[in-house]
Amino acid sequence: MNSENFSLSEAIVSPSYVRKGSQARRGHEQLIRHLLEQGKCPEEGWSESTVELFLNELAVMDSNNFLGNCGVGEREGRVASSLVARRHYRLIHGIGRSGDIAAIQPKAAGSSLLNKLTNSVVLDILKLAGVRSVASCFVVPMATGMSLTLCFLTLRHRRPRARYIIWPRIDQKSCFKSMITAGFEPVVVENVIEGDELRTDLEAVESKIKELGAENVVCVHSTTSCFAPRVPDRLEELAAMCAKYNIPHIVNNAYGVQSSKCMHLIQQGARVGRIDAFVQSLDKNFMVPVGGAIIAGFDESFIQEISKMYPGRASASPSLDVLITLLTLGARGYKKYLSERKGHTTGQGADRKRTHVSRVHVALGVVPVPLPQRCLGRGDHPRRRDAVHEETRQVPEGAEERGGRSARRSPSGSVESGGRGRRAAELKCETLTVCNRHQLICLCVPLRVRP
Amino acid sequence: MNSENFSLSEAIVSPSYVRKGSQARRGHEQLIRHLLEQGKCPEEGWSESTVELFLNELAVMDSNNFLGNCGVGEREGRVASSLVARRHYRLIHGIGRSGDIAAIQPKAAGSSLLNKLTNSVVLDILKLAGVRSVASCFVVPMATGMSLTLCFLTLRHRRPRARYIIWPRIDQKSCFKSMITAGFEPVVVENVIEGDELRTDLEAVESKIKELGAENVVCVHSTTSCFAPRVPDRLEELAAMCAKYNIPHIVNNAYGVQSSKCMHLIQQGARVGRIDAFVQSLDKNFMVPVGGAIIAGFDESFIQEISKMYPGRASASPSLDVLITLLTLGARGYKKYLSERKGHTTGQGADRKRTHVSRVHVALGVVPVPLPQRCLGRGDHPRRRDAVHEETRQVPEGAEERGGRSARRSPSGSVESGGRGRRAAELKCETLTVCNRHQLICLCVPLRVRP
Amino acid sequence: MNSENFSLSEAIVSPSYVRKGSQARRGHEQLIRHLLEQGKCPEEGWSESTVELFLNELAVMDSNNFLGNCGVGEREGRVASSLVARRHYRLIHGIGRSGDIAAIQPKAAGSSLLNKLTNSVVLDILKLAGVRSVASCFVVPMATGMSLTLCFLTLRHRRPRARYIIWPRIDQKSCFKSMITAGFEPVVVENVIEGDELRTDLEAVESKIKELGAENVVCVHSTTSCFAPRVPDRLEELAAMCAKYNIPHIVNNAYGVQSSKCMHLIQQGARVGRIDAFVQSLDKNFMVPVGGAIIAGFDESFIQEISKMYPGRASASPSLDVLITLLTLGARGYKKYLSERKGHTTGQGADRKRTHVSRVHVALGVVPVPLPQRCLGRGDHPRRRDAVHEETRQVPEGAEERGGRSARRSPSGSVESGGRGRRAAELKCETLTVCNRHQLICLCVPLRVRP
Amino acid sequence: MNSENFSLSEAIVSPSYVRKGSQARRGHEQLIRHLLEQGKCPEEGWSESTVELFLNELAVMDSNNFLGNCGVGEREGRVASSLVARRHYRLIHGIGRSGDIAAIQPKAAGSSLLNKLTNSVVLDILKLAGVRSVASCFVVPMATGMSLTLCFLTLRHRRPRARYIIWPRIDQKSCFKSMITAGFEPVVVENVIEGDELRTDLEAVESKIKELGAENVVCVHSTTSCFAPRVPDRLEELAAMCAKYNIPHIVNNAYGVQSSKCMHLIQQGARVGRIDAFVQSLDKNFMVPVGGAIIAGFDESFIQEISKMYPGRASASPSLDVLITLLTLGARGYKKYLSERKGHTTGQGADRKRTHVSRVHVALGVVPVPLPQRCLGRGDHPRRRDAVHEETRQVPEGAEERGGRSARRSPSGSVESGGRGRRAAELKCETLTVCNRHQLICLCVPLRVRP
Repeated sequence: MNSENFSLSEAIVSPSYVRKGSQARRGHEQLIRHLLEQGKCPEEGWSESTVELFLNELAVMDSNNFLGNCGVGEREGRVASSLVARRHYRLIHGIGRSGDIAAIQPKAAGSSLLNKLTNSVVLDILKLAGVRSVASCFVVPMATGMSLTLCFLTLRHRRPRARYIIWPRIDQKSCFKSMITAGFEPVVVENVIEGDELRTDLEAVESKIKELGAENVVCVHSTTSCFAPRVPDRLEELAAMCAKYNIPHIVNNAYGVQSSKCMHLIQQGARVGRIDAFVQSLDKNFMVPVGGAIIAGFDESFIQEISKMYPGRASASPSLDVLITLLTLGARGYKKYLSERKGHTTGQGADRKRTHVSRVHVALGVVPVPLPQRCLGRGDHPRRRDAVHEETRQVPEGAEERGGRSARRSPSGSVESGGRGRRAAELKCETLTVCNRHQLICLCVPLRVRP
Repeated sequence: MNSENFSLSEAIVSPSYVRKGSQARRGHEQLIRHLLEQGKCPEEGWSESTVELFLNELAVMDSNNFLGNCGVGEREGRVASSLVARRHYRLIHGIGRSGDIAAIQPKAAGSSLLNKLTNSVVLDILKLAGVRSVASCFVVPMATGMSLTLCFLTLRHRRPRARYIIWPRIDQKSCFKSMITAGFEPVVVENVIEGDELRTDLEAVESKIKELGAENVVCVHSTTSCFAPRVPDRLEELAAMCAKYNIPHIVNNAYGVQSSKCMHLIQQGARVGRIDAFVQSLDKNFMVPVGGAIIAGFDESFIQEISKMYPGRASASPSLDVLITLLTLGARGYKKYLSERKGHTTGQGADRKRTHVSRVHVALGVVPVPLPQRCLGRGDHPRRRDAVHEETRQVPEGAEERGGRSARRSPSGSVESGGRGRRAAELKCETLTVCNRHQLICLCVPLRVRP
Repeated sequence: MNSENFSLSEAIVSPSYVRKGSQARRGHEQLIRHLLEQGKCPEEGWSESTVELFLNELAVMDSNNFLGNCGVGEREGRVASSLVARRHYRLIHGIGRSGDIAAIQPKAAGSSLLNKLTNSVVLDILKLAGVRSVASCFVVPMATGMSLTLCFLTLRHRRPRARYIIWPRIDQKSCFKSMITAGFEPVVVENVIEGDELRTDLEAVESKIKELGAENVVCVHSTTSCFAPRVPDRLEELAAMCAKYNIPHIVNNAYGVQSSKCMHLIQQGARVGRIDAFVQSLDKNFMVPVGGAIIAGFDESFIQEISKMYPGRASASPSLDVLITLLTLGARGYKKYLSERKGHTTGQGADRKRTHVSRVHVALGVVPVPLPQRCLGRGDHPRRRDAVHEETRQVPEGAEERGGRSARRSPSGSVESGGRGRRAAELKCETLTVCNRHQLICLCVPLRVRP
Repeated sequence: MNSENFSLSEAIVSPSYVRKGSQARRGHEQLIRHLLEQGKCPEEGWSESTVELFLNELAVMDSNNFLGNCGVGEREGRVASSLVARRHYRLIHGIGRSGDIAAIQPKAAGSSLLNKLTNSVVLDILKLAGVRSVASCFVVPMATGMSLTLCFLTLRHRRPRARYIIWPRIDQKSCFKSMITAGFEPVVVENVIEGDELRTDLEAVESKIKELGAENVVCVHSTTSCFAPRVPDRLEELAAMCAKYNIPHIVNNAYGVQSSKCMHLIQQGARVGRIDAFVQSLDKNFMVPVGGAIIAGFDESFIQEISKMYPGRASASPSLDVLITLLTLGARGYKKYLSERKGHTTGQGADRKRTHVSRVHVALGVVPVPLPQRCLGRGDHPRRRDAVHEETRQVPEGAEERGGRSARRSPSGSVESGGRGRRAAELKCETLTVCNRHQLICLCVPLRVRP
């Protein structure tokens, strides 16, 4: 309530009690002021009552909630179901404009503020999590893979003749598909074994660049967050190489915000070389529902260029989720979460898991190098460009139960290779076989290895 | 948000859009201002977004929502479940103080405002519904019957020696119990038949007053809302009689707010005679969940005296419900509801129902006068003072289905009279037999007659 | 969903996944089954999703939520505002029937289950908290004081000629008012000083019984939860005395559920003597919003008699709150809360507070015995029966701030005694002066002494 | 509750009441059964209580809500904020899998059902709205423009060498950007004036196909929903032409579901020729928050191909919104909405608007044909491929107020042409100037012309 209404309230209940209430309100306003002034995640988490007060304030700034709203604007922002209106806190204009997903929307000052503040708070968290020199970021209501696609599509306009993306292999389907969907040719660079780890083969990357011609390479597409035995790519060296050859560098940092190691690698890579954008998922990193990602980078104009590639206004739902979550946790709460995650991933448990995983891999020959060879070895694949096939093999029942995960079967795709000779009691495993101009690869998405 | 925060927002999204948002906010504030200034139900209903904005504003004024609240006050207003906190909009201090249910609570300016405004808005609606000279009212989180009990208990302190309540008979259990619970002796005055209606027997009331002595009568307890063949009591004449004999007059107006006839009777009664308080249910009159009532009257000090009889703080839940409902409907919406109800109760359907009901009554001899005689005729009842018994008789299966209501069986009470000679296929009917010093009465609560 | 719908779902998504979902559902059903079977608070708290699933299940059993509901029953349970419907989980029939607040409601099987289960779970918690032999209890949507009033009103019907309630003095306004409201005469028995404690004067109680005549005493009204220097009444001895003289015994256990000492006293009192009912607040004991109480006892028929005194159906809101809270906490969570509270009240902090309090009292002569004398000493009070007056004195500003509580001023009542000779800088203190036939007492409700 | 729990309930409340509650539950189950069996929008809308019951049922089938869930799967579906969990009804796994946005997710049978049912219900509504032979569709949590992009990207894999999209001009920014973002070259075909309408220039389209070579054309990108003076494209003729030249045909049907004319055009186009996919927005057509679209078509395998292009799991939020809305409205409610919209768009008001719009356009020379000429006439644009520029001109203040819309200013883009020589008092209008290989076009997005 404004001061006039507080004054009126003093005539109804005692002035001194109202003044305390008004002071209390100023306390909430003060928190909001800090947020607006600094655009940072508050150190201490807000109470749910402050969060909801703030969201209500934002909602009343949107034209669909203007009182007596009718006439021309009426159709915009009409919501038929009150269940739906309420679950979105009546913020229903979405974010962005047709021209730019990060832009301000004339009819929705509240949703626009939500959008800007979310991006600003998330930027603060990225810094706090280790990428201190990040310059710009925005939340996009798309999966990590689709967000990578948007980055690649943006690069097309900068490098109209390039068609290859150099990609140190990582067996995650959506990373691979992000390049295919963008219409580029992934050039898969196999990793090298060092001890019991799979690491980036820097020499292979460089020779691939030379072979293809730097001007024909859209970008190098590296990965930080992954599961053993694969370790994060050598970002520093890759970033330096990209700078040397003037090739863009996009980093898939899917689950990496919660890993100080991944974040440190990005920070270092940007310091010594070139990283154009790094993309991370919202759900695991920020404990929100699936469906959003953050596209971030060190050059504000490039990040803006990506945000302008999204045609149309977008859902505000992931932004709303992440803003509520970060305001509720506060920087302190988020740091606590990070340190808990660190405990999870660095402790003995993690080591045991890693060992277990690599044993599984070795036992089954799923990963590392043998796989592609085996696939290639079959040699009898149709060499159709970009053909995508899927296959399914079986895992032992026991393994499944141990892992606690139901195995994912691929829908009846054309099974190409896989379990021949293996009994049904073996590892259920989904592979993605793809033939491009340069090679046939068989991506195995191991089912049981994620912690 | 305050003006400072709006200014800060202008730096984030465009100043002109923020100004529109800020203007929109003022629109909501303006509605709240009107409410605070005038204490009346707004003519036009508020949007849910204004209602929730307002409730959030009230909540932040309560000390349990003060930021950084800890220490001494911490235990007050602690709520363990967030589901519970949210469903009460974090208004959890209840209403009133130990001294007065209508009083202001030092630690809860917001809940106190809620309480005061609810009572004020409800008062406005009572006027609008026809009792234009009502002076004061308050919402109490108790059923109508228990609220009547509170009125009677208050009168005890004014008339310490009185013990009788004169009550023109109405076959509703809780009305009767309201007097028993208060510890008084109901003196039941049978109604007279006029045409096919049961009306107040004014002469019998007056002779009862004379018989008992006016100073021994706590009050006359009359009823407006009832079902055919019973019609509302002759309030004007009763009120005049109460004035003449200086006897308090309490009106049970349970479902009467929605009836212009009932409200008119009360207004007229107060004009020509004496009505100390009239009590109405919240649920049916205001379409809110069961559990609240309004105690209203024409003398503010007496109503205040009643409010001070409630020992302890009380639930704010019914007040919250009725305030949300009235703000959402607005005076216009409530009037529309009233006129719809009028259509229901005055049309042909009502007539048909009435005829049907009186035919049932006549056929079964349940009501009118025969009943008490019949009960008294048995003569063999223990004459224990205030003994309460219940009996059950059967209704034809068909009748039950026609009515669409499941019959209410009394729990195995001591069956006293009832079904003698009647077959099991007869009317299932619950009666309440009570013997007081003066007479044995058998209240029949007809099951099927409410519309 | 039922098994048929699960089968249909198998045709849409994979049978094995649906089976897992169906198993998961059975997990929730299993929890509900335990609750229904045993009527006890589950050992482990339920997730919010189980709680809401269960409440939704209850709601669909109520007739207002029957599909295609129209015709006769339509008016019942109509709620105008969807905000209101939702916040009550669409359980809007209230609890009880006009005849009995604990009774089953034919049109609301869901609300009735809610009511029965809440009472059953609360009974379990009372046992768990120390009163192992409690036989029956029910939640009533009224403050503790009003609930005590209901107990006293019930006793009136058992002891029609009795008019006195013997009450070892405790300076809490609503306890005192609970007797006044019920229309009885409180006979205040001053406490005795033992060390720095104020304890029950058993001899004075017994001599009062003899003086008044046991048959004229409605009950002894004792207190467990209180603040230093007052300590809990000697329940064992009082209970034994009540048994000896055949006088009912009602215990005000307002905040005592969280105190193992209070609960132990009640258990012991019932074992060695007579306790007819003990009454406790819901809010502090169960961390729910203000406005409900539990009436409990060792004789099921007496508790039922009380529940039948409430005329009309009552709000389900406090029952809903306490059920949600206890299902969410689980017995384990509630025990944890109890042990935390124990830490608060038994540690050094409590001792320091006590000492401080008694110093304040001694310094100001507010409590103990001097007070009534002083009041009586004034001698000039009108001896009106049951007159209730209030007065206000001042506290030093510093004291107020130290306590962190805003002082409660009485509304401009007729100041009778109090601050004469004291400067404005003294203790702000609210007293309740009452003259009954036997004595004039001046209750001082010390403002700053509650922890 | 299952039958076992209903039986247990019968022991607590009366069996007959429980049976009624259980029957009532079956009523809800029956509605769910119909939905599961038929996959169609229910004729009558569901009550909110059925909707929420159903959503709760879905949620318990997702593994994040499995009781005692811990260990390996724990990290999946973790949500930090209870506000966030609740607003998504605890359905937080998103939809689809990394391989296919329409696929079933092993760990989330409930979310998968939600996804499948939403797509099925939406398909039913598309049929009901006029496209009776539609074979398949899916909801995608992206704006219409981005969804068009996904369609174009899918076509790239079918037509690897094609690079042009033939596009009858429509002045909507996001349509244009959808092609740019996909990396194709829009070939803009100007419309012809017929009376006061702008209609598709079929000859120009055909000659463009011949000029570019059909094999080099990715698709024809036509539009249905638009504002006067532009009328929907001649879909039948375009579809026939696409069939003749074997060119895919993607229809932008952004707001067309609510227009029987647009839907009829699509149905006819598919009947006589070729339509590969048609894309529509969720918000305006289904009155839900901004951010979702439906991609639909007549060949299930192609629609599936598009759904498999989305890399990663996606937000379930738009699907949830549209499912809630359609279940609440029912087919009847949706048809009522459609007929209201028809009233809006065909009545006199629409005519007046159209006339007004074309007057505005004529007056300012913004649209129709003069524009490109004027832009081209400037001739001095850099011929950079795919360069995108924006400009801003002014509108009279009055016009802005009349329209009730705040004008959208482009963010400080490189202003190329536009307002030179115009006074500030002129029409504020955003244009998008783009130079591709073939022509320079200047898209004017008129601000005030949408109804």
